[in-house]
Amino acid sequence: MLKRYFIELAYDGTAYCGWQIQPKVSTVQQTLEEALGILVPDLKGVMGCGRTDTGVHASQYFAHFETEHPLRENLIYKVNAILPHDIAIYRVFEVEKDVHARFSARSRSYHYNIHFGKNPFKNHYSAFHAFKLNVKKMNEAAEYLIGEHDFSSFAKSQTQTKTNLCTVKEARWEENDGGARFDITANRFLRNMVRAIVGTMFLVGEGKLKPSEMANVIEQQDRSAAGKSAYAHGLFLNKIEYPQF
Amino acid sequence: MLKRYFIELAYDGTAYCGWQIQPKVSTVQQTLEEALGILVPDLKGVMGCGRTDTGVHASQYFAHFETEHPLRENLIYKVNAILPHDIAIYRVFEVEKDVHARFSARSRSYHYNIHFGKNPFKNHYSAFHAFKLNVKKMNEAAEYLIGEHDFSSFAKSQTQTKTNLCTVKEARWEENDGGARFDITANRFLRNMVRAIVGTMFLVGEGKLKPSEMANVIEQQDRSAAGKSAYAHGLFLNKIEYPQF
Repeated sequence: MLKRYFIELAYDGTAYCGWQIQPKVSTVQQTLEEALGILVPDLKGVMGCGRTDTGVHASQYFAHFETEHPLRENLIYKVNAILPHDIAIYRVFEVEKDVHARFSARSRSYHYNIHFGKNPFKNHYSAFHAFKLNVKKMNEAAEYLIGEHDFSSFAKSQTQTKTNLCTVKEARWEENDGGARFDITANRFLRNMVRAIVGTMFLVGEGKLKPSEMANVIEQQDRSAAGKSAYAHGLFLNKIEYPQF
Repeated sequence: MLKRYFIELAYDGTAYCGWQIQPKVSTVQQTLEEALGILVPDLKGVMGCGRTDTGVHASQYFAHFETEHPLRENLIYKVNAILPHDIAIYRVFEVEKDVHARFSARSRSYHYNIHFGKNPFKNHYSAFHAFKLNVKKMNEAAEYLIGEHDFSSFAKSQTQTKTNLCTVKEARWEENDGGARFDITANRFLRNMVRAIVGTMFLVGEGKLKPSEMANVIEQQDRSAAGKSAYAHGLFLNKIEYPQF
């Protein structure tokens, strides 16, 4: 009997052109399917909880697959031994057949790391700023994101989503030793949305945009109203919530 | 009048074939000389406090240079803007002409990071072990390193140093969240010495060598008595002490 399993994993996205399989480039989905395929007979797909862009990391990611065969003993250990060092599996567990890694997810959380001043050891996971940004003002700007809005101003213009409405539940900057971290949670995200939001808030932190102007940027529903996208390497997908577990 | 200046810097060694200039490969010394050369007229050399191997990092490193010209304003900021992200300068200060980055150093400290179990986000600066090592036993082994010994067992066999005597002042493992860190301080280190010591202690942590056998390994003064060298990317030069400042 075909059973469905969820996998909880994490990856350093530096070496991958994102999650989703594409021709001729290395992706996390393909790498995972190849490793699982060695150990799971008749593996049916590996469906992820969402796309991540080239270079974006995931400290928590869920995917599902199906198989008729019972899972091998120590499957997690064996898959990890086959996978490269930048992808790790933490859990594999059976779910009801109607639980879907992408469509059942109720919310997703991302964070974005920045550091002020040069630090040779932070560049893999954090974006560099030569000067300190005004984090207090960036937090004022972040408040305008909360709630349900059309986020077209922060969406790639050529995507074919039916609606650009998203409900943002949390959006908050926190200063830390030598930098700051932005945490954002929403029911869904558009492609490139977090990086476009972060890049726009950099303008606020630099004093080039007033916090209250964030409301206008959102209202215009036009990508050119917002700032440049922030670099991928500071961005982590870090939590996906499902009502089922 | 020719004046001598010390530079305090740090670097991520991943992209470099170590500190020292060599033909046809990228090194930290060459990268720093080129950047400083743009801003300091008639720059005389950049002499480092010691070699580091390919891929080894330095969270503290000192070098000196000389020039007859007064230093530019905001030199640190300007050099950092020219240098790539993986090298950062923190201080530039004048010293007496007889203070030498390499020969005046009284002690050097290194640390080595390891983590147990896969973690996609630690691999840049820490060596992976599939299983937990016995850190308590590794610490027992480390005690045999303290004091003055001939460290030929942990030296590259073809180097031409006059003596392989080193005085180790500190050698200690400490467990941390998900791994461990080894700290070692000595008046001097032979080439590859820390990595050969760490690799030998891995054998102790795996139960393949008794802690007390570390004494025999040292006594034999033979590289083949010790274990394999640990990977470079877990190793940091982190402190150099000078009597003058």
